[in-house]
Amino acid sequence: MTDLNVIGKRAKAASRMLATAKRDQKDAALKAIADALLERQEAILAANAEDVVQAEAHDLSAALIDRLTLNPARLAAIADDARKVAELPDPVGMEFDARTLPNGLNVHKRRTPIGVLGVIYEARPNVTVDVTALALKSGNAAILRGGKETVRSNLALIEAIQVGLAAANLPGDSVLYIEDPERLQVLGLLRLHEYVDMIIPRGGAGLHQFCRENAMIPVITGGIGICHLYVEPDADFDRAVEIIHNAKTQRPTVCNALDTVLVHRDAAATFLPRVVDRLAADRVCFKAEPEALAILGGHSAVEAARPEDFDTEWLSLVLGLKVVDGLDEAIEHIQAHSTGHSDGILTRDQAKADRFLNEVDSAVVYVNASTRFTDGSQLGLGAEVAVSTQKLHARGPMALEELTTYKWIVIGEGHTRT
Amino acid sequence: MTDLNVIGKRAKAASRMLATAKRDQKDAALKAIADALLERQEAILAANAEDVVQAEAHDLSAALIDRLTLNPARLAAIADDARKVAELPDPVGMEFDARTLPNGLNVHKRRTPIGVLGVIYEARPNVTVDVTALALKSGNAAILRGGKETVRSNLALIEAIQVGLAAANLPGDSVLYIEDPERLQVLGLLRLHEYVDMIIPRGGAGLHQFCRENAMIPVITGGIGICHLYVEPDADFDRAVEIIHNAKTQRPTVCNALDTVLVHRDAAATFLPRVVDRLAADRVCFKAEPEALAILGGHSAVEAARPEDFDTEWLSLVLGLKVVDGLDEAIEHIQAHSTGHSDGILTRDQAKADRFLNEVDSAVVYVNASTRFTDGSQLGLGAEVAVSTQKLHARGPMALEELTTYKWIVIGEGHTRT
Repeated sequence: MTDLNVIGKRAKAASRMLATAKRDQKDAALKAIADALLERQEAILAANAEDVVQAEAHDLSAALIDRLTLNPARLAAIADDARKVAELPDPVGMEFDARTLPNGLNVHKRRTPIGVLGVIYEARPNVTVDVTALALKSGNAAILRGGKETVRSNLALIEAIQVGLAAANLPGDSVLYIEDPERLQVLGLLRLHEYVDMIIPRGGAGLHQFCRENAMIPVITGGIGICHLYVEPDADFDRAVEIIHNAKTQRPTVCNALDTVLVHRDAAATFLPRVVDRLAADRVCFKAEPEALAILGGHSAVEAARPEDFDTEWLSLVLGLKVVDGLDEAIEHIQAHSTGHSDGILTRDQAKADRFLNEVDSAVVYVNASTRFTDGSQLGLGAEVAVSTQKLHARGPMALEELTTYKWIVIGEGHTRT
Repeated sequence: MTDLNVIGKRAKAASRMLATAKRDQKDAALKAIADALLERQEAILAANAEDVVQAEAHDLSAALIDRLTLNPARLAAIADDARKVAELPDPVGMEFDARTLPNGLNVHKRRTPIGVLGVIYEARPNVTVDVTALALKSGNAAILRGGKETVRSNLALIEAIQVGLAAANLPGDSVLYIEDPERLQVLGLLRLHEYVDMIIPRGGAGLHQFCRENAMIPVITGGIGICHLYVEPDADFDRAVEIIHNAKTQRPTVCNALDTVLVHRDAAATFLPRVVDRLAADRVCFKAEPEALAILGGHSAVEAARPEDFDTEWLSLVLGLKVVDGLDEAIEHIQAHSTGHSDGILTRDQAKADRFLNEVDSAVVYVNASTRFTDGSQLGLGAEVAVSTQKLHARGPMALEELTTYKWIVIGEGHTRT
């Protein structure tokens, strides 16, 4: 079994070198990693094929097998993403909040890497390279603990990453991979506070809960989205139907996909049948509470919602429907059922929109747009390492700047405190 | 025993009202609290006198008894601090990072309160009011769990706080106090993640460790400072001696006080005796490693350092002395022994200063100034709720802005993702 203290110490030492590495060197490593991924395509795809055979032998779901499968196009896209991170600005060293205090002390803050990131993820080999690229660019070392379903793929990807690090003369310990088929090391990694500065879990609700309950290191929880759109009677119904269609169907398996539509009573009779007609044509099924169910009569795609349905992240073509008294009840419902990921209002009334934006306390709050924009690339960050739904450090999509901290720099000329 | 779930639910409900409270109302509450503290002075001081009697009966140290004792002047200062917080700008609602994306979506971030703060502290009744003022001003509810040594004082202060909240028409549940003489509730508070968004421990290293090991909620650890100053041969020795004198003696019992002086070998023979002469006159004792000890001969204030002395936060008039080869060894020593709080270099060489600022990864890094400036008021924040030495969320002194998070606001006109 890997000795985590040794791993931690090596990563910490590498993180000190990365912290002062210049942008050119970090970008060179990212490009060399992209090159190595393509050069080693044959070995990587062969390793991945073995993972797929094992996954099939263990009767994993088709969706899971699809997620862990690599092919030349997917590998090229992964390499391309690493190159794109090289093009993003380097957040390290950025100075802000500069001022001269009345006593003449010069004070500012400077962005610095966080140090060592611990990343715990499941069956997605692309995470191995994505996280590596964002960690390196932001000057952080990373300890990666991937899922057992992709261990061969991950080790092959790590070999390419090591080739890239060596080519750019960065320490090999910048990216360390923990082989952990029996899942014995997750707990140890969560408690390695002497060396690891931040834990990023990438996976389902169970993984996030395990991390929150067991970590002695700050954890970025998130990635679980029970997302709502609330429709006011004055909304542009044509646009509202298209926004709901997009939020539900454009990619239903991800955390920013829509889960529940709340409709003002005065709009329900007109609007709900339009939603059902439009989305049922694309194979969406509906869970409707009694009042919505009454309006929708016996539509074959609509069934009665159980109470727990409104606390379910569907990740599939299912949509909850509920009629509410108005904005107050909509906000109350969202406060009670949202995971604080992405929630929106569809209205042309600025005062209503303002109240919604003020009172709904989610990471991303929308007016007249699809929840599917909660994504680092979509919101202009150029990349994404996670979507945080907790309140400390960073909220919503996290990319390079969110993988940094800052230090205070104080310059005096013999200043003493009186 | 208090039912923490009930406490949590009440605090969360109050936090929703505080989140949208206007600045005027929050400031009115702070002023009303200050008034109530003075109006109720007699009752507060009587309650405090009982705490002092109990503390004496339990043979608590004179230093501790001094910390928990209130008198008219101290109470007036506490009330005055609450008034000063009312004068600070309100961070809530501040908008930043605004941009229009190529697709026309308008995106910005808006500062919002964190929600509910859990504060665990020891025998300092002023914390009850300080934390209340900063929490209210930043729109957060607070659950306070003070030390048993000051329970009577804290309850009397909380009564004044409740009077102030009522006068400004803010919910009484904005500030809830947990009576917990047997220390049975700390663990429960650390696990109340459904309702509490951030834990702030205010106390010694043991409390911070307990919180880190047991919390299921993000914890701001900090407040432990093993602080260093490193002296280059080109430093202005007159100023350097005064900076060291100030950093060690101006208030030796606090976390930003100096613990270790590192001196370049080329400066040691000249500089170390000057430090010892100046500081020994003010009752400082020294722990010197062999090379420093050899230089300082048989000075009565100097004794041989044990290795563990360089990992000790002295909090008293003791100073470690060590001779180093130069900047590299100084940085290595600091990386190995600093708690990441406050460390500085004394030099006139810009290149040396730059290397130190780059490579020493502490919350506050100094050039030619006393470490005693690591303090929210001293660094221009107007107040301080804690000094963070962890890397997430906030680092160094934390005040109002550091008690906020942000939400993303996305405004579309029917935008859907393609």
